[in-house]
Amino acid sequence: MESDTKRVFAFGHDEHGNNVTEGSAAMKAVLGGKGANLAEMAKIGLPVPPGFTISCQTCMEYANAGNVWPKGALESIQEYRLDLERRMGKRIGDAKDPLLVSVRSGAPISMPGMMDTVLNLGLNDQSIKGLIEQTGNPRFAWDSYRRFIQMFSNVVMGLDGDLFEKALSKAREVKGVKTDAELEAEDLEALVSEFKQIFSQNVNTDKYQSVVQNGVAVFPQDPSVQLKFAIEAVFGSWNNPRAILYRQKNKIPEDLGTAVNVQSMVFGNKGNTSATGVAFTRNPANGAKEFYGDYLVNAQGEDVVAGIRNTSPISELKRVPGLEEAGKQLEEVFITLENHYRDMCDIEFTIEQGKLFMLQTRVGKRTAAAALRIAIEMEKEGLISKEEALLRVDPSQLDQLLHPQFDKNAEYDILARGLNASPGAAVGGVVFSAADAVAWKNAGKPCVLVRWETNPDDLAGMIAAEGILTSHGGKTSHAAVIARGMGAPCVCGVDALRIDAEKKEVVVLGSDVVLHEGDMISIDGTEGIVVLGAVDLAQPEITGDLETILTWADEVRKLGVRANADNPADAQLSREFGAEGIGLCRTEHMFLGDRKQIIQSFILHDDEKSRSEAVAKLLEAQTGDFYGMFKAMDNLPVIVRLLDPPLHEFLDNGRALEVEVTRMECTGAPEKDLAKKRSLMEKVDSFAEQNPMLGLRGCRLGIKYPILNEMQVRAIATAAARLKKEGLNPKPEIMIPLVSTVAELKKVRATAEDVIAQIEAEQSVTLEIPIGTMIELPRAAVTADEIATEADFFSFGTNDLTQTTFGFSRDDVEAEFVPLYLSEHILPYNPFATIDPGVAKLVKMGVELGHQGNAELQCGVCGEHGGDPDSIKTFNQIGLDYVSCSPYRVPIARLSAAQAALKA
Amino acid sequence: MESDTKRVFAFGHDEHGNNVTEGSAAMKAVLGGKGANLAEMAKIGLPVPPGFTISCQTCMEYANAGNVWPKGALESIQEYRLDLERRMGKRIGDAKDPLLVSVRSGAPISMPGMMDTVLNLGLNDQSIKGLIEQTGNPRFAWDSYRRFIQMFSNVVMGLDGDLFEKALSKAREVKGVKTDAELEAEDLEALVSEFKQIFSQNVNTDKYQSVVQNGVAVFPQDPSVQLKFAIEAVFGSWNNPRAILYRQKNKIPEDLGTAVNVQSMVFGNKGNTSATGVAFTRNPANGAKEFYGDYLVNAQGEDVVAGIRNTSPISELKRVPGLEEAGKQLEEVFITLENHYRDMCDIEFTIEQGKLFMLQTRVGKRTAAAALRIAIEMEKEGLISKEEALLRVDPSQLDQLLHPQFDKNAEYDILARGLNASPGAAVGGVVFSAADAVAWKNAGKPCVLVRWETNPDDLAGMIAAEGILTSHGGKTSHAAVIARGMGAPCVCGVDALRIDAEKKEVVVLGSDVVLHEGDMISIDGTEGIVVLGAVDLAQPEITGDLETILTWADEVRKLGVRANADNPADAQLSREFGAEGIGLCRTEHMFLGDRKQIIQSFILHDDEKSRSEAVAKLLEAQTGDFYGMFKAMDNLPVIVRLLDPPLHEFLDNGRALEVEVTRMECTGAPEKDLAKKRSLMEKVDSFAEQNPMLGLRGCRLGIKYPILNEMQVRAIATAAARLKKEGLNPKPEIMIPLVSTVAELKKVRATAEDVIAQIEAEQSVTLEIPIGTMIELPRAAVTADEIATEADFFSFGTNDLTQTTFGFSRDDVEAEFVPLYLSEHILPYNPFATIDPGVAKLVKMGVELGHQGNAELQCGVCGEHGGDPDSIKTFNQIGLDYVSCSPYRVPIARLSAAQAALKA
Repeated sequence: MESDTKRVFAFGHDEHGNNVTEGSAAMKAVLGGKGANLAEMAKIGLPVPPGFTISCQTCMEYANAGNVWPKGALESIQEYRLDLERRMGKRIGDAKDPLLVSVRSGAPISMPGMMDTVLNLGLNDQSIKGLIEQTGNPRFAWDSYRRFIQMFSNVVMGLDGDLFEKALSKAREVKGVKTDAELEAEDLEALVSEFKQIFSQNVNTDKYQSVVQNGVAVFPQDPSVQLKFAIEAVFGSWNNPRAILYRQKNKIPEDLGTAVNVQSMVFGNKGNTSATGVAFTRNPANGAKEFYGDYLVNAQGEDVVAGIRNTSPISELKRVPGLEEAGKQLEEVFITLENHYRDMCDIEFTIEQGKLFMLQTRVGKRTAAAALRIAIEMEKEGLISKEEALLRVDPSQLDQLLHPQFDKNAEYDILARGLNASPGAAVGGVVFSAADAVAWKNAGKPCVLVRWETNPDDLAGMIAAEGILTSHGGKTSHAAVIARGMGAPCVCGVDALRIDAEKKEVVVLGSDVVLHEGDMISIDGTEGIVVLGAVDLAQPEITGDLETILTWADEVRKLGVRANADNPADAQLSREFGAEGIGLCRTEHMFLGDRKQIIQSFILHDDEKSRSEAVAKLLEAQTGDFYGMFKAMDNLPVIVRLLDPPLHEFLDNGRALEVEVTRMECTGAPEKDLAKKRSLMEKVDSFAEQNPMLGLRGCRLGIKYPILNEMQVRAIATAAARLKKEGLNPKPEIMIPLVSTVAELKKVRATAEDVIAQIEAEQSVTLEIPIGTMIELPRAAVTADEIATEADFFSFGTNDLTQTTFGFSRDDVEAEFVPLYLSEHILPYNPFATIDPGVAKLVKMGVELGHQGNAELQCGVCGEHGGDPDSIKTFNQIGLDYVSCSPYRVPIARLSAAQAALKA
Repeated sequence: MESDTKRVFAFGHDEHGNNVTEGSAAMKAVLGGKGANLAEMAKIGLPVPPGFTISCQTCMEYANAGNVWPKGALESIQEYRLDLERRMGKRIGDAKDPLLVSVRSGAPISMPGMMDTVLNLGLNDQSIKGLIEQTGNPRFAWDSYRRFIQMFSNVVMGLDGDLFEKALSKAREVKGVKTDAELEAEDLEALVSEFKQIFSQNVNTDKYQSVVQNGVAVFPQDPSVQLKFAIEAVFGSWNNPRAILYRQKNKIPEDLGTAVNVQSMVFGNKGNTSATGVAFTRNPANGAKEFYGDYLVNAQGEDVVAGIRNTSPISELKRVPGLEEAGKQLEEVFITLENHYRDMCDIEFTIEQGKLFMLQTRVGKRTAAAALRIAIEMEKEGLISKEEALLRVDPSQLDQLLHPQFDKNAEYDILARGLNASPGAAVGGVVFSAADAVAWKNAGKPCVLVRWETNPDDLAGMIAAEGILTSHGGKTSHAAVIARGMGAPCVCGVDALRIDAEKKEVVVLGSDVVLHEGDMISIDGTEGIVVLGAVDLAQPEITGDLETILTWADEVRKLGVRANADNPADAQLSREFGAEGIGLCRTEHMFLGDRKQIIQSFILHDDEKSRSEAVAKLLEAQTGDFYGMFKAMDNLPVIVRLLDPPLHEFLDNGRALEVEVTRMECTGAPEKDLAKKRSLMEKVDSFAEQNPMLGLRGCRLGIKYPILNEMQVRAIATAAARLKKEGLNPKPEIMIPLVSTVAELKKVRATAEDVIAQIEAEQSVTLEIPIGTMIELPRAAVTADEIATEADFFSFGTNDLTQTTFGFSRDDVEAEFVPLYLSEHILPYNPFATIDPGVAKLVKMGVELGHQGNAELQCGVCGEHGGDPDSIKTFNQIGLDYVSCSPYRVPIARLSAAQAALKA
């Protein structure tokens, strides 16, 4: 930035009452949210105490230079300070009629409470006199000075706040009173002296050498010094640890910086015609069109927030004697603001001796239900268009409406925290195995399944349980993915749990709690919380507003929305949520339970006969599976993925077998049993792989064992033929996973086409079954032009594509490494949750090359990213045809897709 | 192809002696190699028996249509047949003076012996009379007819050849003679009858219905039928299994097809003024400029090849009475051909009653030594340019010159076959452990290390052994990679070996051999062969010719050539082989032996003190390592890669520990020992990963444990500083592995730069140490523009890049899956040996984007592909700066790079 760049911007009126505001709401990137909105309010004539704003860019320059002021900046600030004094007709630090200012942070994106604020700046041993004289209220003046010293010492100079709190508490004790309000002027004056002494004794004089005078540290008296230090402190607070963490969590860029707002102070605590309050222009909890908020007479803003005194509802303000005018004016301001901002606003105001001042406004936060209602009602009022209404609802908030939650009024202590892996809350008795979960379910008792981590064997138990809790694994661990898929609450990776499943016992580190089977717990998968005992739950309310918004969304979105579902119940649910088809039906989930024995038999026997028998059994079962799926999704496409996981996932664990063999050897088990066990172990070991993710799986399975593909295709075609004969309209599609070269696809496709032709002939039906492939390996993306010649559709499997593109195994890396990488600023966000730009580049390449190879190619995405709003925006830009996600995310995807289309 | 396409091409003279040849050597793609060279010889006036060639394209059309003749093709052939009869003044099948023809295959790329040939076509019960009359030699005529029936029945009609051999053998028995030559005309006449009967009884009449006359199968008498069937058989032989396999092995495209050459027969067995022979224009074994070959008087070509009679050297031919003229003419032909083809030619000739006929020529195959000598001498003779000379040597052949081989004259039986994993041959006693190998070495006894597969623990033993033999693992298994790196012979993946290392015993399946420790075996890693007993070895000869060619290569190549080496001895060797630096020094190989304990201690102890102690020890050792490397490579760059492998590779195996724990539990071991072992197991397990290839490794290690990077960089900088003070010129470079985002590189680079600056200050030296990164993940390639802003150089790690791009773990996939994919035509070649086009696309993208980010960026490759000639061609096209390969492949890379530059 060049040295003649404008760094400081005035807002409010001058000494003649003329508006000299230099900024506007459009300048958030320069003035921050607070500064821009102050300017905007001033600009439209609302009563804003005059002040000026120092730009965010100045903050970043200051920080990047190692806390060194850019050339000319301090001079500009000084100039605007003098100007403000001229406008106000008062000088900061003046012994007769001092101007007090506040110094507040304000970043372009709201980071509430994360950065620093200094109030009452300008008070010193001289100006205190002027303040007493002007207000005729020594108590108010000394209290202001006391607060200023305390705040400045703590926030700006880094002293421990407790030092002052202790002195304050001692003063109350000495006086024999309970609250600060009971301290009188002389008590406060004495405290000011004591506070100054605390300052002198505790300030870091190495760092702040300038406060030392004649060998003694003195609380800064020069208002210019106070101001400079305060601004530097606010700048510095941009990089305090909690602010950094907040930005990481909320994906806020690191290079925005914060503005600093220097504003003349007004006081709501100057007697009974003064007041202060916060308010919303509508009800932020349910969206009702009513003024909503609280005020306190004769109080300062912090008193409202602190909740020490009982506040009154804002609607009563205009009936308070002496505040009638200001109260009425405030309601007019509400209407002005809503019409001006065309949204619900959140405001802070102060009434000083009957005169209203606006201290802040911004678009207000709201619940999902409120967001829906406000958007729809504002559209009806003609305030906003349908398109704007759609953009007013945060899609990820919708999750609140689709799952039970802890009741807002419930009180509870958090026992442990983990990852918020799947939203919703659940209450139940602790169980330690899938079998126990099923038993509890059958006995009509709700339970929460607690495991180190889950595996495919646990599926029945996961379905039976109200919720799932694991001590290991990340947001894409088995537990998390499956739980989200079926809409069950799940908290993962709770490090504090030491689970001993054999003993049926969990030690909770950091507490003295040991959980046993049946102990009642509650989990909140939206927040990642575990609570001991049963917390009251609030059931989800799906209001008509949601339906209205989603209908509007469907009108504008370009992306189709399908669901990932593996059974008819989920398929049905996704259809109710508005899915336009099944984008991914994972057949491996159909090989669990009894069928696991059959597939094991297939794998472990080399002879033709055993294999054929196994395949025949699987064929019958699978035909039933697909019949149910296609029936539930009648008239809508169902993409069935052929068997994908490494075969050894269906087998026992080789290590456990070797331990058993060793034990049998030691205990002298019969040689025959031992030999049998040993032979099983050897067979299982022969399927072991060092990196199963990159091994015998996906289409490689079907190329090695063509009979598996034939069986699955036969089941798909037979089920479709049966439904056709019943007069329905099944629309199956076959998806071949993990293709890296067109030759693989060509081969598997040819087999599938042969089988389909056979069924058509046998059953005398015509079947149209498109055949496509997952694009989930980088090679598939970069050679998509070749692959598309053999594919009717592509479905980007962005989970695996992220793994291979990054070389990250999510099983190993996500829980351990992604958090480290986030905290080290190496990753801006978890690439397994939101699509990474590098991976997106490969998706884009795949789509573009794919259309070169086949102009009719349909392209979708079926990874976890398909339900993530940020990723959906990227997919919309890339020009995919649809996204596919878990049933519970279908509404979110519909709205996200609409927003992406509107923003494009 | 349209129906008016020219399908048939004449060669040789017409009835007036005019040359009517329609093709040339340039038309190999149409006429095949044999046909094109026959045309070329005829064109330049050499005596070629007239004939015509049917195009390769006709073969492919016929095959692609499911063995149906393209329109007009048969008519064209008939026309050219009539033309040939006119030109020869004889008709095929004529009862007075029959024309006999040969029908031979000939593909664009030579596939010797893979496809079919029919000789003496045109003989039948009528024309036999004419042949007797014309030759006055009934024995010759009947023998020809006998041979024709046998060959036609077998090759064209698919009868079992043994049926005829048995009849022949019975005829000899009855007559009481030992050789066919002793059978007389009447015996052969009787055999013809018997052969016709064998035909009638055994021909597949379902397939060949046309041979049935009045219900009896009759040997085809119609020459048109004979000719059509023979041509179809040759076409069909393009797709016989052995031809397909040969094409796979030699990377010959499937869609070339074979031409068919129909040529008038000449006979070298018409008495003592007739002869036949094969020859080379120079010595193909050593390259000497001399006529080289063999002939037989009164014989047919197959007799020379069969080796039944003793042949005479070609130089004597011109001194044989009656053959003087033809002999002299032949020597003139040699000179003509060499001058015309400007290369050593391989020829077949026949002299029929004193008249020389040329039946075939082609550029001759030769040994590596011969290739070098011929290329250099022809350049000196002015026959070819230096550039052409360079292109005349097959780089992969050079391996022959750099390693010992089985002596050519040695006789041996192959005990088992495996993968030719690392070239060269070795002889030694079987040992089963690295420790035993070291013991044998120390005792002065040569040994071969036999393992299921090797791991880093075996390194000392691998160095001690003469060669390595494994039953498991592919060409990029640990054993193969390490063996190639150190130039040791290695045969991998020998399925037939059932190794019991505890018993020190190998059962060799498919034989009755059981090997025990000390049993002498020989392995040939160039061929992938295991032999029982000691085979004589021929030691490598590095002739001056190799040096000459490599010096010429260095003049034209654009790619630099570096070596992958991890110790001073290998570095020195690579320097002798002409490496211009070390492109990859893998530091993990330096953590073996005693140091493994130290790194284990680092990993297993969480406390600062133990870790610091371990790091201090490693620092001292590593400083010594790097000192040695940089000294050996003084003045040349040495790229040191920071620690790369998953940490748990340095730890004991968790499964083995659990088995031990189980055993200790059973046997009631003291609780203290048990607890210790259990705790070790838990610690080791905490490092276990499901997919270590995609886990905590590469730069992730150094980000998690920055102290490891600091230690390594400190060692590098300290070693360099020490050498500088000694007056040498060390040129270390630091390479950061497995980078997926620029932020990783930036972080590690910053740490490294800090450490280097510290050492510079401590040692008062200036160090210039470029810092770069491996590009071995797809994300790095697609975001190379960002990554290059923090990199001085890129080195493409194409091994890992191939793994992640394909989603192939080479540990799991290469031995099992790549062979299946090759046989199923899914992969054209092993992508771990020769760079795949999809992976190459990412390399290209990486180079292009990288230069956008940093115009000065140096780009190289250090995967296995760096030493592969085909890959080097690709890397040259992409515009890399250098390739880096194992020391023994440096000469190969130098020549390959030159050829790539010349072909560009």
